Amino acid sequence: MAIKLYGLVVSNSTFRSMVALIEKNLDFEFIPVDFAAGEHKTSQFLARSPFGQLPALEDGELKLFESRAISKYVADAYADKGTSLTFNDSKKLAIQTVWMEVEGQKFDPASAKLVWELALNPVFGLRTDDAVVAEYEPKLAQVLDVYEQRLSESKYLGGDVYTLADLHHLPNIHYLMGTKAKSLFHARPYVRAWCNDLLSRPAWLKVLAMLPK
Amino acid sequence: MAIKLYGLVVSNSTFRSMVALIEKNLDFEFIPVDFAAGEHKTSQFLARSPFGQLPALEDGELKLFESRAISKYVADAYADKGTSLTFNDSKKLAIQTVWMEVEGQKFDPASAKLVWELALNPVFGLRTDDAVVAEYEPKLAQVLDVYEQRLSESKYLGGDVYTLADLHHLPNIHYLMGTKAKSLFHARPYVRAWCNDLLSRPAWLKVLAMLPK
Repeated sequence: MAIKLYGLVVSNSTFRSMVALIEKNLDFEFIPVDFAAGEHKTSQFLARSPFGQLPALEDGELKLFESRAISKYVADAYADKGTSLTFNDSKKLAIQTVWMEVEGQKFDPASAKLVWELALNPVFGLRTDDAVVAEYEPKLAQVLDVYEQRLSESKYLGGDVYTLADLHHLPNIHYLMGTKAKSLFHARPYVRAWCNDLLSRPAWLKVLAMLPK
Repeated sequence: MAIKLYGLVVSNSTFRSMVALIEKNLDFEFIPVDFAAGEHKTSQFLARSPFGQLPALEDGELKLFESRAISKYVADAYADKGTSLTFNDSKKLAIQTVWMEVEGQKFDPASAKLVWELALNPVFGLRTDDAVVAEYEPKLAQVLDVYEQRLSESKYLGGDVYTLADLHHLPNIHYLMGTKAKSLFHARPYVRAWCNDLLSRPAWLKVLAMLPK
């Protein structure tokens, strides 16, 4: 039975799971959720994803939600396919896990608000709240200062090769590169080179090709 | 070489790593960080934990930060010791990981603000901001509604046995049980029973015994 990914093209969490599936060279069926019609709040969808959030994955009888749990499952369960997105060595994996936590606990809280205000609100015809932008830009800058130091010592955040610790950042970086927050990434040479590397990966270009033109 | 945990007694993140070490029956040296003197912002400590946050772990040459990455390392690297805090089966582990993500992405953002406002601010002589409490109580209630449903079907969040998916909740639950937010947990019978179970685990009682009287 094919893997099914329920999501929405434009949702950064959907992208996070999707790029992991593509890195692993897995065939999957993408099932768009009709967000505008409130499909994500129906009892049928809430049985898949109880917070009504996207994406959700189905692999045979296994049903998962939370984009980072999905990408982790895909990396672990299909270890022999596509790009290895995770370390086997327990100490290397521990370091990778630290930076996966940093993404979830530090980078995402600082950057997701800016993605909404600067990139998505304008798409949906909503006003950008400059006060929110002014609050979150310095928070993101602080995170990127730590990244600049880390990336001056390590090619990728999780270690010497590309892993989930990098991949999880892709959707938010993609969106912010089309906004004035791009300057926060570009002002830091190691961060800039890392972003360019991530954004030019073939798996990410395949995700972009699925976006509405 | 003994494991060293750098942290602060009262810090909920320190507790999260500490209770995992105790569940695993590991000997460790607890090294208090002089937060009041700003030790966490010294270059020496920032080399361990670049955001200047607690806790940090040292196990031989391995240095880790981020409390959930520390507990995960301990559970994986010392699989044969103490309580098994994680599933081996890849599908069970995937479900456990979903609920670990739910804790980090949903429960913690809703509950950590309440821990500060209701439990810690009064300890530090700071005023509770009622507007923040009014904003976050309904957010926590929404999360606990999902938990009530999950726990009516599964003894623990991650599956049929206690895992990191439950353990990671302990510090915030502990603090909120001493505040008016306790009623949010107690109004939901399955959540209430789960909290009582978690809070009565011997490893957690050992953490409490380390608190200043």
